[in-house]
Amino acid sequence: MARVVVDVMLKPEILDPQGKAVHDALPRLGFDGIASVRQGKRFELDVEGEVSQQRLEQLCELARTLLSNPVIEDFTVHVAPDTAR
Amino acid sequence: MARVVVDVMLKPEILDPQGKAVHDALPRLGFDGIASVRQGKRFELDVEGEVSQQRLEQLCELARTLLSNPVIEDFTVHVAPDTAR
Repeated sequence: MARVVVDVMLKPEILDPQGKAVHDALPRLGFDGIASVRQGKRFELDVEGEVSQQRLEQLCELARTLLSNPVIEDFTVHVAPDTAR
Repeated sequence: MARVVVDVMLKPEILDPQGKAVHDALPRLGFDGIASVRQGKRFELDVEGEVSQQRLEQLCELARTLLSNPVIEDFTVHVAPDTAR
């Protein structure tokens, strides 16, 4: 069993109202010196068996078709280091 | 400028309806061999200046108070490797 992590973030040119709301709240709460905040999604998938190259490509396909909207979002797929076997 | 990443995931004992919905959709879409899916949030913070130990503790406080609900969520804070200076 390996854990595969898919991070999905809005593309840089897309406005991120959630991130902006967090960023605007920071000075009010006494946190300074943060230039920008972007909010995205993180998926943790527990994959049975070994994560071969072919399996990883299948998971990228899954990330592209089910977990992200490729028009407005970018994604990365990686195996969590401590679970790779 | 360094990029600090805060990952927020539901605690393992908390039900995750979003992750379950994704997991239930997988066989329908032809993806097998995935034991579980958990969905969480990822925040990317662009921090001005150097990220000292003290700054990192301040960011952990920020993650605890603003970005997560410590009753039901766990978080991790790390500096994105390619931006650490």
